[in-house]
Amino acid sequence: MKSQKEYQVEQERLRPMRHSLAHIMAQSIIELWPGTELGIGPVIEDGFYYDVLLPDGQQLQQKDLAKITKRMHQIIKADLPFRQEDWSISRAKDFFADQPFKLELIADLEQRGTTKPGQEAFEGKDLVGVYITGDEQFIDLCGGPHEASTGKVGKFKLTRVAGAYWRGDNKNPQLQRVYGVAFASDQELEEYFVRLEEAKKRDHRVLGEKLKLFMHSDKVGAGLPILLPRGEQIKDLLIRYMRQLEQAKGYQYISTPVLTHEALYQASGHADYYLDNMYCTEVDEEGNRFYLKPMNCPHHHQVYERLVQSYRDLPLRLAEASPLYRYELSGTLTGLIRVRGPITQNDAHIYVTPDQLKAEFIKVIDLFSEVYQEFEIEDYWFRLSLPDFGKDKFTEDGDKWQYAADQIREALFETGSEFVEAEGEAAFYGPKLDVQIRNVMGKEDTIATSQIDILVPGRMGLKYIDQENQEQTPIVIHRAIMGSFERFIGFLLEKTGGYLPFWLAPEQVRILIVTDKAGAYVGEIESVLSSLALNQPLQANQLRYKVDDRAESLGKKIRQAEQDKIPVQIIVGEKDQENRTISLRKKFSDKSEEQTIEFDQLANYLSSLAESRGKNE
Amino acid sequence: MKSQKEYQVEQERLRPMRHSLAHIMAQSIIELWPGTELGIGPVIEDGFYYDVLLPDGQQLQQKDLAKITKRMHQIIKADLPFRQEDWSISRAKDFFADQPFKLELIADLEQRGTTKPGQEAFEGKDLVGVYITGDEQFIDLCGGPHEASTGKVGKFKLTRVAGAYWRGDNKNPQLQRVYGVAFASDQELEEYFVRLEEAKKRDHRVLGEKLKLFMHSDKVGAGLPILLPRGEQIKDLLIRYMRQLEQAKGYQYISTPVLTHEALYQASGHADYYLDNMYCTEVDEEGNRFYLKPMNCPHHHQVYERLVQSYRDLPLRLAEASPLYRYELSGTLTGLIRVRGPITQNDAHIYVTPDQLKAEFIKVIDLFSEVYQEFEIEDYWFRLSLPDFGKDKFTEDGDKWQYAADQIREALFETGSEFVEAEGEAAFYGPKLDVQIRNVMGKEDTIATSQIDILVPGRMGLKYIDQENQEQTPIVIHRAIMGSFERFIGFLLEKTGGYLPFWLAPEQVRILIVTDKAGAYVGEIESVLSSLALNQPLQANQLRYKVDDRAESLGKKIRQAEQDKIPVQIIVGEKDQENRTISLRKKFSDKSEEQTIEFDQLANYLSSLAESRGKNE
Repeated sequence: MKSQKEYQVEQERLRPMRHSLAHIMAQSIIELWPGTELGIGPVIEDGFYYDVLLPDGQQLQQKDLAKITKRMHQIIKADLPFRQEDWSISRAKDFFADQPFKLELIADLEQRGTTKPGQEAFEGKDLVGVYITGDEQFIDLCGGPHEASTGKVGKFKLTRVAGAYWRGDNKNPQLQRVYGVAFASDQELEEYFVRLEEAKKRDHRVLGEKLKLFMHSDKVGAGLPILLPRGEQIKDLLIRYMRQLEQAKGYQYISTPVLTHEALYQASGHADYYLDNMYCTEVDEEGNRFYLKPMNCPHHHQVYERLVQSYRDLPLRLAEASPLYRYELSGTLTGLIRVRGPITQNDAHIYVTPDQLKAEFIKVIDLFSEVYQEFEIEDYWFRLSLPDFGKDKFTEDGDKWQYAADQIREALFETGSEFVEAEGEAAFYGPKLDVQIRNVMGKEDTIATSQIDILVPGRMGLKYIDQENQEQTPIVIHRAIMGSFERFIGFLLEKTGGYLPFWLAPEQVRILIVTDKAGAYVGEIESVLSSLALNQPLQANQLRYKVDDRAESLGKKIRQAEQDKIPVQIIVGEKDQENRTISLRKKFSDKSEEQTIEFDQLANYLSSLAESRGKNE
Repeated sequence: MKSQKEYQVEQERLRPMRHSLAHIMAQSIIELWPGTELGIGPVIEDGFYYDVLLPDGQQLQQKDLAKITKRMHQIIKADLPFRQEDWSISRAKDFFADQPFKLELIADLEQRGTTKPGQEAFEGKDLVGVYITGDEQFIDLCGGPHEASTGKVGKFKLTRVAGAYWRGDNKNPQLQRVYGVAFASDQELEEYFVRLEEAKKRDHRVLGEKLKLFMHSDKVGAGLPILLPRGEQIKDLLIRYMRQLEQAKGYQYISTPVLTHEALYQASGHADYYLDNMYCTEVDEEGNRFYLKPMNCPHHHQVYERLVQSYRDLPLRLAEASPLYRYELSGTLTGLIRVRGPITQNDAHIYVTPDQLKAEFIKVIDLFSEVYQEFEIEDYWFRLSLPDFGKDKFTEDGDKWQYAADQIREALFETGSEFVEAEGEAAFYGPKLDVQIRNVMGKEDTIATSQIDILVPGRMGLKYIDQENQEQTPIVIHRAIMGSFERFIGFLLEKTGGYLPFWLAPEQVRILIVTDKAGAYVGEIESVLSSLALNQPLQANQLRYKVDDRAESLGKKIRQAEQDKIPVQIIVGEKDQENRTISLRKKFSDKSEEQTIEFDQLANYLSSLAESRGKNE
């Protein structure tokens, strides 16, 4: 796999080519379906898309992609030059008179004077940039850049048609979005589709179904997954693992209710800006309205008030692993990755004095790396979202913002962490540090987050008495090392293809019995397994194993064990019993290894497997 | 303490006396406030009450109790005889013409023909029983029995006045309820108040506040407690303890969402009869209405459908420890004992074939006794609620009901369990087995429950294929060994007065430092403590300890540790360091023990304490 930097450089390098392909595709569609209205057509990771609305209610079908592709190849073969021009707003309006979506973009631009409506780039307020293909075969609002001509666009494949609301708002007309992928060479294009196939096999929804990890029920509702015994076992192990680690570092676990009176969200300010994402109950007969908590912070602030009087009580590290619920449109829900709930965040709030901020933040960064190392997540980096310090709204608390930003930046430098900065993307209450990874498709994804809150503690009246006996307001670090446990399971499944680390496998060992005369020997093996106290990264360190004594062939039993992704299988036949040997099949990846050891070596074998945590070498 | 049987016999013995006192009190109030309207006046545990409505909006005050008591003593001294008569309904209506609540009771009686309206007993449909005091100084609707005369009523004390809606319905007028306690002798009465004082000290709400176990926040809402670090530690240990025990017995843990689409409750039937106790969300923009789950059964039935095809998959034991929420009127909420949520039930559903029912139920009873033994809960008994088999509604499924009842009864006999039967009190879906204990006031209380469900599995279409390849419906055992973990914590606090078993103490050991020269020695002690792997009833078996190195006197440190109910305190002074000794204070009850041991004995000392589980001998 390419490193993140290589990947980003490549994405940048391919931008003009992909953008040119979007124009070529739009031109083809208009030529094939005259009267088509165009939305936007940006470059995305690995390719491009264009939103189109065919005339007379016609709908593009998957089979139309071949027709469009053919037309595109003709345009590419013609090698038409791309040419940039700046037009006045009025000229642009005249030209795009029969393209209502483009007119809307131009009107926006006129009003806002922005240079970036959507994905396009424009020059100034009075002029708009357009790109012209050939002898005006196609003209589009566009800031470029493009290739010199349609002949220089590499290799592409149109992949699918999906619905997309104009500007992503379901009150607007629904357009059709045509997607394409594009790379510089046929080989890279092919590699992309190999990765895609692999990703499909590793899709956590597919694995979750196959391995009986979780399920959905129509009656329970969309986006509300149920963890089956094996999935729940994984979640419980992750929770125990984090809890053990965090308690050793001075975190204290608390538990706060999901159901919460609206008074809390009025005090915290969430009622003003987060309402659309919160489930709300009908008013009860005593006149109360409750919400389901979408985050833990306001509750933790209540506990702070109960536990903290003085600077001596700080830092206070409050942790919680209880479910959150957030309203999401049903169309956006995905397996365990995007749910309405439960979102069991690996959540904690650290209350500090300004002096303690950097040191505590360094501990947070260290914890990130300790945990990610455990799961062999090596290719991750930080994304530091800061405010745009030039803007007005920060002048009032500018010093605090600057202080917080400096402290995080120093913490990142001192820990030697790889990070990028994103100006103007901070949370409203403070700078934010996201942990970015690349998913199985190589795409950037946020796996966890940490935020500094310099605003809400003051708004909610949190106080402590400092060494000079003065009342002060604490700073809060929000952090979720694993993000949500459900989401982390989804991520781990896709990362490992279902081959979880030995200590995390819901069933670590299975005994496959191939003779009905081995009862006593199986008993001996079981007594070894059940008495092992493994050095796993958990104190709940008993081995989890099952016995397959069905009246089935060995082949069938092995296939079943492989399908269930059992890392270690012990096959017990008559010879094993006679010789007091243990026939092992170890399967930590797509390849399996076979091995025969002495009975007396079994305990050591499994202990050292647990010691090495069963990592794939 | 008296045994449950002795206690019940005594309660029965004192009934007539307490009932007579209720009449004497009502008579006194009417004489003192002529025109008072009377509600009902039953016997309760340890005493009696009467509901009254004073004329002209007057309200009884606490200070009026002395006046009433004085008048009662006059009536007692007069030794007026009690006499029973049967009156016709019309005579009774004439007599009670100015007592509207009594008229309502008579009208009910006339209509329903019941012999038990409220707590009173009546004879037949056309006649009502009354009791007459002396020369008609007071006459009340009443089934008795009473003492022979007002002189034979033992010792009493009026305790308090509270509000009570007529018939418990907040749409009805609010009356005042005057409570009294009564016993045969002054000594018994005095003992009662001693118990009451002790109960106040042991009140889990008081202990919870003192020991920083939990808190309430007005903003979060009533009945929605927050567990502080120490309380959450206890809850987590209880959950781990049960989980370990249950997993070893073949239970499988799952996790289902709190938020649930109404479709599930329409299918389960809860929407028909449980709606008033369920929190319901506002309908979302996609037209969905959700509830907060008030119990886990319907969810578990969904998982059953996913996991079970044949009899070979049974018994299936699904367990879950996730929060439930139930709407309760704010007036009924009490600490951790009665909450709106989270109610984290120690819940499981066992799906069985009819043949497996008894054997599985025996395992449930065994688990009850194993767990209660761990917590030294010795005085508990079962209460088997059965249907009234004479009634019509059971004819249809009569055989199933009878089978289930017989199986539970046999299971109780075979395990030698103490139990009482309560006819006509079964759940609508099957027989119920409650676990009854006596709380710190000696009162009967249900701590946990187990139910057999012969109805809902069929209604929800649960199936399995039996050995003859026929489709069958499973029977479900619902069981909650600890009830809810929150409630169990409340119960344990009141039972132990806050002196939890050693393994359950949130802070097991505290090191009290009395010299600033002991740094190295404290380090040595800490390294013993932190490396201990204790044989506690949990695999998470690390010792929990803290160091008190504040610049305070030893006396103050000890007082703080005692107040925090730390079972073991290690005092480190200069002499201890010189002599390499360990000065211990052990405090498992109101008494403390002091002891000095060698440093080398420390690990053994704590290990054997954990082994014995630190039970009070």
